[in-house]
Amino acid sequence: MRKVLRDEQLIDPTEAVQLAISRLPVKLPVSEVSIIDAIGKRSAEEVESPIDLPPFSRSTVDGYAIRSSDVPGKLRLMGKLNIGEEPSVTLPPGQCIEVDTGSALPPGADAVVKVEDVRKTSEFVEVTSSVSPGLNVAWMGSDLVQGEPILSQGEQITSEKIATLAAAGISTIKVVEGLKVAVITTGNELVPPGSPLPPAHVYESNGWYLAARLKELGHEVLGPTMVRDNYEEILNAISEAVDRSDLVLVTGGTSAGERDYVHAALSSLGEVVFHGLRFKPGKPTVMAIVRGKPVFGLPGNPASTVMVFDRIVNKYLSQGGWDEPLTITAVLAAPVMADPRRFTYVPVYAFRSTSTTFVYPIIFDSHMIGTLSSSDGYLALPPGTRLEAGSVVEVRLLKVDPRPVVLGEEERSLSLSNNVRKLLVGSRPACDALRMGFGDVLIVSSLLCQPDSYQYSMTRTLFWSGRGVEVGYVDWVGMSSLTKTAHVKVKSPSIALKFLNRGRVLLPSTYHAGEEEVGEETLYVVVRNNSRKFLEGIK
Amino acid sequence: MRKVLRDEQLIDPTEAVQLAISRLPVKLPVSEVSIIDAIGKRSAEEVESPIDLPPFSRSTVDGYAIRSSDVPGKLRLMGKLNIGEEPSVTLPPGQCIEVDTGSALPPGADAVVKVEDVRKTSEFVEVTSSVSPGLNVAWMGSDLVQGEPILSQGEQITSEKIATLAAAGISTIKVVEGLKVAVITTGNELVPPGSPLPPAHVYESNGWYLAARLKELGHEVLGPTMVRDNYEEILNAISEAVDRSDLVLVTGGTSAGERDYVHAALSSLGEVVFHGLRFKPGKPTVMAIVRGKPVFGLPGNPASTVMVFDRIVNKYLSQGGWDEPLTITAVLAAPVMADPRRFTYVPVYAFRSTSTTFVYPIIFDSHMIGTLSSSDGYLALPPGTRLEAGSVVEVRLLKVDPRPVVLGEEERSLSLSNNVRKLLVGSRPACDALRMGFGDVLIVSSLLCQPDSYQYSMTRTLFWSGRGVEVGYVDWVGMSSLTKTAHVKVKSPSIALKFLNRGRVLLPSTYHAGEEEVGEETLYVVVRNNSRKFLEGIK
Repeated sequence: MRKVLRDEQLIDPTEAVQLAISRLPVKLPVSEVSIIDAIGKRSAEEVESPIDLPPFSRSTVDGYAIRSSDVPGKLRLMGKLNIGEEPSVTLPPGQCIEVDTGSALPPGADAVVKVEDVRKTSEFVEVTSSVSPGLNVAWMGSDLVQGEPILSQGEQITSEKIATLAAAGISTIKVVEGLKVAVITTGNELVPPGSPLPPAHVYESNGWYLAARLKELGHEVLGPTMVRDNYEEILNAISEAVDRSDLVLVTGGTSAGERDYVHAALSSLGEVVFHGLRFKPGKPTVMAIVRGKPVFGLPGNPASTVMVFDRIVNKYLSQGGWDEPLTITAVLAAPVMADPRRFTYVPVYAFRSTSTTFVYPIIFDSHMIGTLSSSDGYLALPPGTRLEAGSVVEVRLLKVDPRPVVLGEEERSLSLSNNVRKLLVGSRPACDALRMGFGDVLIVSSLLCQPDSYQYSMTRTLFWSGRGVEVGYVDWVGMSSLTKTAHVKVKSPSIALKFLNRGRVLLPSTYHAGEEEVGEETLYVVVRNNSRKFLEGIK
Repeated sequence: MRKVLRDEQLIDPTEAVQLAISRLPVKLPVSEVSIIDAIGKRSAEEVESPIDLPPFSRSTVDGYAIRSSDVPGKLRLMGKLNIGEEPSVTLPPGQCIEVDTGSALPPGADAVVKVEDVRKTSEFVEVTSSVSPGLNVAWMGSDLVQGEPILSQGEQITSEKIATLAAAGISTIKVVEGLKVAVITTGNELVPPGSPLPPAHVYESNGWYLAARLKELGHEVLGPTMVRDNYEEILNAISEAVDRSDLVLVTGGTSAGERDYVHAALSSLGEVVFHGLRFKPGKPTVMAIVRGKPVFGLPGNPASTVMVFDRIVNKYLSQGGWDEPLTITAVLAAPVMADPRRFTYVPVYAFRSTSTTFVYPIIFDSHMIGTLSSSDGYLALPPGTRLEAGSVVEVRLLKVDPRPVVLGEEERSLSLSNNVRKLLVGSRPACDALRMGFGDVLIVSSLLCQPDSYQYSMTRTLFWSGRGVEVGYVDWVGMSSLTKTAHVKVKSPSIALKFLNRGRVLLPSTYHAGEEEVGEETLYVVVRNNSRKFLEGIK
């Protein structure tokens, strides 16, 4: 029978990670590699510089090594110290030595005068102004002292760190390697991408997500393997995967039965560590230990798989101080509310303005992987959180889209350049953007707000077409104000168009010449800064 | 003879990139790969969804598909629609159909009531409250409409995008592949890491940096190959590399002669496109076309190699709208000044406070690769820029260090936990941090500032030791106020200690019991929030 996960039995995400780590700490393998192959990996140990950097005091210019107290004055030139050559004598007072950039500074010298700043004869060098001690010298150890740490244990190795390791003479380093991870997906409705899609079926995407993400993190992936929604098949697939790998991830399909199959199979094969998270999306997550190996059962909704992997599985795998994702502080551009009882993860669009990053919480349901993948990051909100527009929030940033943004109503007669980011999700965020000062091109409907000034406007008539289920728009779209009774709320006229022969659909005349006129709206196009070039179709 | 690069002959970095692109556009190869192998690569084409997502309207819960206008009421149960099963009939008024999460919604139905929200007998289902149309339904196309773009051309492919491609049925994709890049380093003073270091020599690091960075960006690397500072050898190495690769990078050593050798070799082998950038660090950069292939000559200082690669070579390679690095806005915590005539790149430390990121410009010289690699990012300043503390700046962020930060004076008797980031660079930034509100543990000297409150303090006596060149401290260190005449200015007492037998060194008693007492300073330790645990040695 269906197992119901009651709120009071759920555990917090942080607690779940701690519990998993304490019950079965992950041992990631370590290998010694050439520093070039260490790029992007994590250091398995603290690495200290075995030498000073620079290893000796060096000239940073081509010129003459002097005693600064000798100048202004005429100095006898006692020869040249080539790069790579060890100084054999101390510089006597009143004399100088020619040096190249990088030559060792001879003992006694405390400054170097540039070749273009002296008057030179064959035997003498004249310096006419005074010189600060230390001028043009890179002192021994001034960059890094022997024993100073270059890398901490667990630190991700950047190309700049590799340069520093090389400069310190280190050619190989111990790094943390990945695990062998088996990925299993379950569900009768699933079809692998690349094959034809039968009616009422969907393409499997969770396994591909996990495989790509694990690969990105340096793990080796077995699978994804698709299993039907059948207890025996699921049990056998998990059991076999446990023998062949270090970690097993199973994503449930979405039927009620199969969630129980995974849980039942794990209970039968080993010991369940936790089942049920105060986490949205991703409540029915389960973790078990089977023959000494960790197995996670993830919910079948794509957004749940992404969030649970990011916040639970990956934190378990990295178990240390270095697993924190890249977060930035930003200003919330619209109110947001968490689930009253669960930690809630809300995807956002991020917008840069001159001095602030604004984030806009996205209308979202956990099946919407396409919408999630177009987001720039997400907010992690504790249960019951309510935040007003203008609040400062921490955002987990997934990517930064450098393109100018067109935000607002969808209207297919407006031709937009290919080099822009199109967020044609409705007027609501565009009206907020207008007020708060972000976005490059804003397209707003007169039904939701009216800009003080604009570069272009057009009026479109709105019509009901067809019969049956009423198809309107989500609150972000201007036309939503005309369709309070809609059965279906879609995100844009192009989606509404899909329902044309299946219901009563509200559409602008520019999409479909309809039957019953409802009214009209004016779309205002506000072009900020010099974003004009991104609107091709507009004079 | 030495070629002098005059300011008026230098070109702007943006102009240099444009010139290189217009003279010799890069053709990056394209290949079709499994979506899993596309992770982190760039899409070679715009990819649109071939289907709607969801492909049909689906239930998002386990329950009963109904006509919302029928409830409250008692509905006849007409059977079950399993997941993966195509609806064969329209739901008649007054009836309902059992559905699983993910089952197709039968025509006529416009909502689903959860199984736990009904009273059920064998033949009837009773819904006692009214139900909004659309409840618990994921409408066809509500995530993504057929024809909606999933990826833009040149967009980097994330694991979330791979999930979306899979969900849309796409199993392979055309991606941009890397080039074959030859890396050559020149210089007589260079020794490869891993071998013994002769006097007056340094380890080669530029080639290793470039190889790692190129590998990270998906290019194949030939080398790094070390060549001596000899015209014939450099000419032959470049000529051979051009034949074996798509792009050649040569880093000069630092002697005057060899900069000319690379330039002379390039002039002789092909055509120089530009020589000399209004760019700091990295003025003597050269680009040439040799037998139809691009060759860049980079200056030998490690910081120049990093900056020129990032801002010139990589922009040339990515030549499009998607090459912008990750930048954030931050508040400058100390004044900064650009070179009057050159675009100037200044590494910074980044500090997070509740609502702001502060950045602190680092005391820096272009040979300091260790210091650069410990920075969090850099500022790119146009020539002549002067910015005051408190200015809002754009920062190119290279990494985010999640550890708590200990900032301030170095004192080896203070034992610090291993889990902290130690920026023991002196009191100046710590005093600013105290005032502006960032940093977790601050250690300031009474010689530079005095906190209102503190958790711990200690006094140390300061001594001159030894004879000769005077070794003091950079302005950030408290003791610098006692050593205005220092010939050598180092960053910390541990570096000063290295000069003990070579000069007159100012040191605290805790480092060396000296001869001539100069005074004393009190170190105050200010522990913010609950960072107490990071100070192990302090009661």
